[in-house]
Amino acid sequence: MANGRTAACLAVGSELLGEQRLDSNSLAITRALANHGFRVVEKRVVGDREDEVATAITELLSRVEVVVVTGGLGPTADDVTREAIARALGRRLDPDPQVEAGIRAAYEARGRTMPEVARRMAEVVEDARVLPNRKGVAPGLLISTRDRLLVALPGVPWEMADMLEREVEPELALRGGGAQRLSRTLLLGGAYESEVEQRVRGLYDRFGRDNVTILASCGVVRLVLSSEGEPTSAERRLSEMEMAFREVLGADLAGIDVGSLEHAVLAGLESSGMTLAVAESCTGGLLSARLTDVPGASAVFLGGVVSYSNQAKEELVGVPHDVLVEHGAVSEPTARAMAAGARASFGSDWGIGITGIAGPTGGTADKPVGLVHWAVAGPAGITANHRVFSGDRPIVRLWSVHFALDLLRRQLALGRRHG
Amino acid sequence: MANGRTAACLAVGSELLGEQRLDSNSLAITRALANHGFRVVEKRVVGDREDEVATAITELLSRVEVVVVTGGLGPTADDVTREAIARALGRRLDPDPQVEAGIRAAYEARGRTMPEVARRMAEVVEDARVLPNRKGVAPGLLISTRDRLLVALPGVPWEMADMLEREVEPELALRGGGAQRLSRTLLLGGAYESEVEQRVRGLYDRFGRDNVTILASCGVVRLVLSSEGEPTSAERRLSEMEMAFREVLGADLAGIDVGSLEHAVLAGLESSGMTLAVAESCTGGLLSARLTDVPGASAVFLGGVVSYSNQAKEELVGVPHDVLVEHGAVSEPTARAMAAGARASFGSDWGIGITGIAGPTGGTADKPVGLVHWAVAGPAGITANHRVFSGDRPIVRLWSVHFALDLLRRQLALGRRHG
Repeated sequence: MANGRTAACLAVGSELLGEQRLDSNSLAITRALANHGFRVVEKRVVGDREDEVATAITELLSRVEVVVVTGGLGPTADDVTREAIARALGRRLDPDPQVEAGIRAAYEARGRTMPEVARRMAEVVEDARVLPNRKGVAPGLLISTRDRLLVALPGVPWEMADMLEREVEPELALRGGGAQRLSRTLLLGGAYESEVEQRVRGLYDRFGRDNVTILASCGVVRLVLSSEGEPTSAERRLSEMEMAFREVLGADLAGIDVGSLEHAVLAGLESSGMTLAVAESCTGGLLSARLTDVPGASAVFLGGVVSYSNQAKEELVGVPHDVLVEHGAVSEPTARAMAAGARASFGSDWGIGITGIAGPTGGTADKPVGLVHWAVAGPAGITANHRVFSGDRPIVRLWSVHFALDLLRRQLALGRRHG
Repeated sequence: MANGRTAACLAVGSELLGEQRLDSNSLAITRALANHGFRVVEKRVVGDREDEVATAITELLSRVEVVVVTGGLGPTADDVTREAIARALGRRLDPDPQVEAGIRAAYEARGRTMPEVARRMAEVVEDARVLPNRKGVAPGLLISTRDRLLVALPGVPWEMADMLEREVEPELALRGGGAQRLSRTLLLGGAYESEVEQRVRGLYDRFGRDNVTILASCGVVRLVLSSEGEPTSAERRLSEMEMAFREVLGADLAGIDVGSLEHAVLAGLESSGMTLAVAESCTGGLLSARLTDVPGASAVFLGGVVSYSNQAKEELVGVPHDVLVEHGAVSEPTARAMAAGARASFGSDWGIGITGIAGPTGGTADKPVGLVHWAVAGPAGITANHRVFSGDRPIVRLWSVHFALDLLRRQLALGRRHG
């Protein structure tokens, strides 16, 4: 068994071994486990075969304290998780009339008659606690011994999530002995992982390497600070960490527990009562799409133009013909004109312009694939920046969106400080 | 060992055991394996610990013929895959000067000097073939015995994908002994899974339930037909299946092996030499973003306007003020005017307009959350449609984009048939 309180996730289902689907239940389970001090050290996916599921359960129980199995609890013949658990633990599997009555009632509540096959779901592993399914039909199972906890949850995400919260978390809290893991996520935009890491490295020693996780994705860096133990002291230590990181990161910190860069930007606009419009070329609407994915974005986001062609840049965004001729569509002057044009066209307080070469073709020696210019126009003028990003087309587009959003975030923060 | 030619994926990386990230490399690996007749029977994720990685490799090699490991090949101390493989196989790990020279060259090609730590990447497991990394620095490893194949690839998706295709697939083809699984994906847009299933159910019996997989996501339905065995007869059987499904699906079939609805639409535009522009309200740029994610979209996609505000709908898209006053922003007349306005503003052959209420707020008794109108304007006039979609904001937006794209696809197909 690995050090500390360890756990593993096992997803059962042949459809999760195909070319299209991933087991994403493990993310919510990992979060619930972490909240109570358990660290996931292994994840597995196996198909709907009783022997394979049983082997996986046996191996995982030999290694970790808590094993959470999802899927394979339904009524059909390929739902084998109940049998596999019984086999792995060497326990009996018996029909439980009371559980069957509950399942029958769940079908009836949905206006359906319980089919004969559904009786399988009423089979219960010896000494297991049956977990009621409030969002569906198939019950879960929980088997607790002195040193091990085995939980089986349905594979349907909302059924799983509800059962996890109501039935499993209290058990985890008990086992965790009141110890909790609290966490806080610091968000940075327009940043490189290696540079951020270099700056905060000194704090790793002070607070413990295991209490800081750094996650980076195309110019967005997240520092997840965490602290375990008795809640009051864990909270105090976490606040200390936050202060220390805040001091090091300064104006580069985009927000704490804000979800995403677009959330941070929209909140910044909302708190200052200002509006935004954008003009995009190489990002082709991705910046708009990301902003408007946030509920309520319409309060501050007025709209955007995707101006792929030079004609659209001129006519819809008002980029001067001369600028395009002299500097080209991918240039700082064009990005500036697009930002200013977006602002003017929509009558917004702020405008963003992005133009670049996302690839895979279209690059030249002067202007290689990955070259992107972006600019932010606001009440006090226009600021621009550029980079040559590496990666394929979707990646270059993501980097661009993140850097452009972060430039606006910084300008908004400056405005607040100086205003 | 399970029946048939079996395989497993092992992803190495503590970051893949957290609350944020999933191992998605396994999807591409599963596809490559399936193409050569190998079925993935297990997936695992373990952290950056040499003993845990070694145990996983040992267990998987005892169970399946092919094990593909991703991640843990980089230069830092927590990259332990090389050591774990050597330990699991009981083989030596030796520095290889030639590999080191290659790594040094890869750094230099990126304008950087090889750091001292990078020498670790030149350590090679005894008798392993070194797989060059054309998209990055860390080389992969391939170890082949009579009855087992172990491959280690970088965790960075594009490095992994390139190495998989160039270095691993030929080896899989050799091992597969010519037996292949062929597959073909039939794409439908603006469709519901249950309706499609009802229509093709009769064909399941004829061709075997296991040879048809149906996958649905917000109005896009994919039917994956597959056929295994000796290539010539597998190909013949697959063509038969395709013909039978084509007949049943008729004009609802958006394409075969086309990747996505936007690929189908862009190809349709390109083959007819026509162009497209869009005006989006509730989808907020998502339609543009999806179209421009396809390389080369700029050949036919001229651009778009995200017109959240009524003012933008009037000024930038040319929706008549009276239409907005009389029918409201979310209405068929507005969708029609947006489609026509996009076409006029950008001077394109086709225009799409989408307007709706993506939620979570903004609905009324008359116009509930989820109500979306879309229209397609083309050389022969304007066609409109609408639905009340269920699901949360991102889901309503996806449904809308898929239904609107499919309406254009159908109009393009009609045009081809009648032109």
